[in-house]
Amino acid sequence: MSSIAFIGLGNMGGPMAANLLKAGHSLTVFDLSQSAMQALAEQGAQCASTAEAAIDGAEVILSMLPAGKHVAGLYLGEAGLIAKAQKGTLILDCSTIDAETAREVGAAAEAAGLDMLDAPVSGGVKAAQAGTLAFMCGGSEAGFARAEKILAGMGKKIFHAGDHGAGQIAKMCNNMLLAVHMVGTAEALQLGLNNGLDASVLSEIMKNSSGDNWSLQNYNPVPGVMPATPASNDYQPGFMAQLMLKDLGLAMENSLKTQSAVPMGALARSLYASFAGKDGNAQRDFSAIIEMMQS
Amino acid sequence: MSSIAFIGLGNMGGPMAANLLKAGHSLTVFDLSQSAMQALAEQGAQCASTAEAAIDGAEVILSMLPAGKHVAGLYLGEAGLIAKAQKGTLILDCSTIDAETAREVGAAAEAAGLDMLDAPVSGGVKAAQAGTLAFMCGGSEAGFARAEKILAGMGKKIFHAGDHGAGQIAKMCNNMLLAVHMVGTAEALQLGLNNGLDASVLSEIMKNSSGDNWSLQNYNPVPGVMPATPASNDYQPGFMAQLMLKDLGLAMENSLKTQSAVPMGALARSLYASFAGKDGNAQRDFSAIIEMMQS
Amino acid sequence: MSSIAFIGLGNMGGPMAANLLKAGHSLTVFDLSQSAMQALAEQGAQCASTAEAAIDGAEVILSMLPAGKHVAGLYLGEAGLIAKAQKGTLILDCSTIDAETAREVGAAAEAAGLDMLDAPVSGGVKAAQAGTLAFMCGGSEAGFARAEKILAGMGKKIFHAGDHGAGQIAKMCNNMLLAVHMVGTAEALQLGLNNGLDASVLSEIMKNSSGDNWSLQNYNPVPGVMPATPASNDYQPGFMAQLMLKDLGLAMENSLKTQSAVPMGALARSLYASFAGKDGNAQRDFSAIIEMMQS
Amino acid sequence: MSSIAFIGLGNMGGPMAANLLKAGHSLTVFDLSQSAMQALAEQGAQCASTAEAAIDGAEVILSMLPAGKHVAGLYLGEAGLIAKAQKGTLILDCSTIDAETAREVGAAAEAAGLDMLDAPVSGGVKAAQAGTLAFMCGGSEAGFARAEKILAGMGKKIFHAGDHGAGQIAKMCNNMLLAVHMVGTAEALQLGLNNGLDASVLSEIMKNSSGDNWSLQNYNPVPGVMPATPASNDYQPGFMAQLMLKDLGLAMENSLKTQSAVPMGALARSLYASFAGKDGNAQRDFSAIIEMMQS
Repeated sequence: MSSIAFIGLGNMGGPMAANLLKAGHSLTVFDLSQSAMQALAEQGAQCASTAEAAIDGAEVILSMLPAGKHVAGLYLGEAGLIAKAQKGTLILDCSTIDAETAREVGAAAEAAGLDMLDAPVSGGVKAAQAGTLAFMCGGSEAGFARAEKILAGMGKKIFHAGDHGAGQIAKMCNNMLLAVHMVGTAEALQLGLNNGLDASVLSEIMKNSSGDNWSLQNYNPVPGVMPATPASNDYQPGFMAQLMLKDLGLAMENSLKTQSAVPMGALARSLYASFAGKDGNAQRDFSAIIEMMQS
Repeated sequence: MSSIAFIGLGNMGGPMAANLLKAGHSLTVFDLSQSAMQALAEQGAQCASTAEAAIDGAEVILSMLPAGKHVAGLYLGEAGLIAKAQKGTLILDCSTIDAETAREVGAAAEAAGLDMLDAPVSGGVKAAQAGTLAFMCGGSEAGFARAEKILAGMGKKIFHAGDHGAGQIAKMCNNMLLAVHMVGTAEALQLGLNNGLDASVLSEIMKNSSGDNWSLQNYNPVPGVMPATPASNDYQPGFMAQLMLKDLGLAMENSLKTQSAVPMGALARSLYASFAGKDGNAQRDFSAIIEMMQS
Repeated sequence: MSSIAFIGLGNMGGPMAANLLKAGHSLTVFDLSQSAMQALAEQGAQCASTAEAAIDGAEVILSMLPAGKHVAGLYLGEAGLIAKAQKGTLILDCSTIDAETAREVGAAAEAAGLDMLDAPVSGGVKAAQAGTLAFMCGGSEAGFARAEKILAGMGKKIFHAGDHGAGQIAKMCNNMLLAVHMVGTAEALQLGLNNGLDASVLSEIMKNSSGDNWSLQNYNPVPGVMPATPASNDYQPGFMAQLMLKDLGLAMENSLKTQSAVPMGALARSLYASFAGKDGNAQRDFSAIIEMMQS
Repeated sequence: MSSIAFIGLGNMGGPMAANLLKAGHSLTVFDLSQSAMQALAEQGAQCASTAEAAIDGAEVILSMLPAGKHVAGLYLGEAGLIAKAQKGTLILDCSTIDAETAREVGAAAEAAGLDMLDAPVSGGVKAAQAGTLAFMCGGSEAGFARAEKILAGMGKKIFHAGDHGAGQIAKMCNNMLLAVHMVGTAEALQLGLNNGLDASVLSEIMKNSSGDNWSLQNYNPVPGVMPATPASNDYQPGFMAQLMLKDLGLAMENSLKTQSAVPMGALARSLYASFAGKDGNAQRDFSAIIEMMQS
């Protein structure tokens, strides 16, 4: 078991930290929210008053932050954690951020003799609570070998995507593809409905045919087809439309930097930008995009 | 076992008829091509000189034709097979055509006291040969119950999508969705490649995450990731780009008639129209669309 | 001056017929609506109880109908006007319909020794009333020469696009392009607004630069930029979103038949289908599409 | 007449500087290329060995650089020109860059008591040579009043779009709209051609109808319609596809930052990314995009 400094106790970070405690690790936590820290303290974590204080004596630093600028701010520079961390510390950044920042921070850590991995997660709040997240990791083989043991306390599937930044790229590609097949699934099912077909029957046929995809299997966008989906619960998230829009934004940014053509991804981004921009849709589940196809 | 009249012995119809013979049915076949009929005769079929002659004494009529106009021409009107068929005949049209024609022909059969199903197939030439096709059927419950026994000789999955035309709608929706996730998969993998990721590693990650879909599982568009795919064999079809373009055309036509919004499907159609329009791409496999994303 | 049979007195046909009367022609009119006929009678037209009665003694037949099936129904077959018209009659169909039907009807008229032109209009109700419509004509040179004199009573610009059907093609291409630059103009102006620019200033700059187009010049989609536009009048039409959707449908149908790639046109159709499908947008002006770009 | 320091003598900067000399201004130039400086020296300019040396005694600094990072590098920081320029200097940055950098540099100049305008140009190399460029300016009223007199030596249309960065936004919006109507025009003309129409006739009709736009008027993408266009000269630029792709990239980046929905712009970017990525298309004129619509 390891002593872990955990920075960032939001909707995802909170339950992830709780699962590390359950797995037997010793945790020191830091977050700007006192109540978030208090909740972890009740489950056995130590609280620190600064990020720097939190990493004192830590073998592992784990962070879960909203965007690249927060990650760069936490780790880089003279006052950053990379400069302060003791030799041999393993750093796991589980934030979903742009690959450029991930590469920059990873290189800085490596230069300082630290193992670091970008390790963004897939699965959402429910998987964070259940300890069934997927982790997509970027960094060295040696770092990945060390990381696996820690991440196993929070997730089921732990992938090594490549070098620094590759975890972010893998997540970005995956979520762009998710957006594409969710919108495509919504279109196909609504087209069937407009022709008088039963959405459950059509879903069953396509799940057993070449149209099959994760959205059909787990996240049917038509109300009533699968009882536990957001679609069957007033499109309460789940995965908010604005978060999908954020992830598509990361993919578009990257496509500009790499001169990549992503026509379907770009259209998905346009549709989510139009959809999330009004009527309170930003906070609704991303599968509600089917409403753009309905009369 | 039944006596079956089989009309249309092309790339798909030929092996389908052969499988019905193997299953023990007695077949009378008709096709405009003498050599196509000859091939079946060698496997035990009777040959007829006209479609009308072929159905003499048949309990079941099965047709496999290129487009709606051929199906309407075969079945409708005073000289059509519906007018000529004996009471109680079961008609199975396995052609992939527009739903409107399927509904019209189905209604005409019903008015004449005949069971008829539109039963388009999914799976391609290999599945036709192996007897592992999927059938998506539209018609009455009673008709479907009769059809299942015949279709079981040619396929593994037999779905009842709804009333007349519903089989065509289901296939159309499925194939539109296939096009969308194939293009999306191509984009996601190429974006990963452009960022230095390994396509096999990225594919494995997405197959185990929310990006998962049939194209990733069975038909990876990047050469070398899966040895048996068209991508690994110079994009020899497989499923030709021009056939996907035809299927997307059926979906677009239907979307116009039903006033449906299908933005991803429409973009897929645009990309396949541009792609298949040049450089001999029409006859290459539809997964070669990834070349539109490559520099 | 000519004796003209005018069939179809709707929003467009009514004022067009009135202008022909003002130009000194003698008119016999037919419409299913008695009140529509009555309005023309008060302006000097004769009323007929059937289309066939209306063409008795007419040198010119002019029709203005909603769709291809109505045009085919009026002109083709044993009871159609082509069979009934006296030799030498000039037929002008001003309806906006699919080119295929226009070609079919035009060929039938030619076979019967009649000059016929498809002559769809551009300009809307206001131009119909003001006598400033544009006509895009398809048919022979000789027919066009005869038509020009009649059409000059209702419009200012009279184009000869080519043979039978070419008038419909020209209008279809034009309106698809209009949809594309209207949506593009809406996007560009909204993007400027989102960056704090003044829409009037930005419009003025783009009108004098390479972004210039008819929508910017005549039909600015931002409220307040041009006082007389639908945008400045609660998006009251003008040109209803559902009519643009109909025209884009004709273009998409044609693109399927001619195997044409029209990616921008297809996207415009998708956006209008999504937009017009809800919130009463179908009856609002087509420039209200800018709301899809607004938060 | 003013003493002007001119930094950046590329394809555009060179002829712009030459026109300022012709207008009677006194120029000191700097560029990394000796031959570029030599060419201007022969026309009467002084050459400087560094940018800092070039601005010694200058009333006006004018720069024409490839991207935002070059502009930031030239002007910002302790060694940047803003820190070195004498009070009262007018700075005109004519580079096409992202609005964020333009705002940052503009604000830094203002803080240092200098008038600065972002003043990107429209019109290409020919207009630069002919002195007929358009300038879209962002900055204060006072700065704009001073700038107009200088810019008049190089262009015909000088617009004040708003505060710092507004010039870049105006150009970005304009060029995105240009891309949209160019692709739309290409689609409409090719659709007409696929239906047997004459491209010149169809162009003439649409120029006189609601499809009218700058591409139709000045830059017809079909070979032979207008003799002087790139289309009629093997698609030699003109305006290279890769430059349009760069401008669309700036628009997409900005749309991400401002959460704007730009579906047509995003599709245009996808098409240009696919097109420019192969077959040497990057260096061909941007109107060659019509080839994506051809079989």
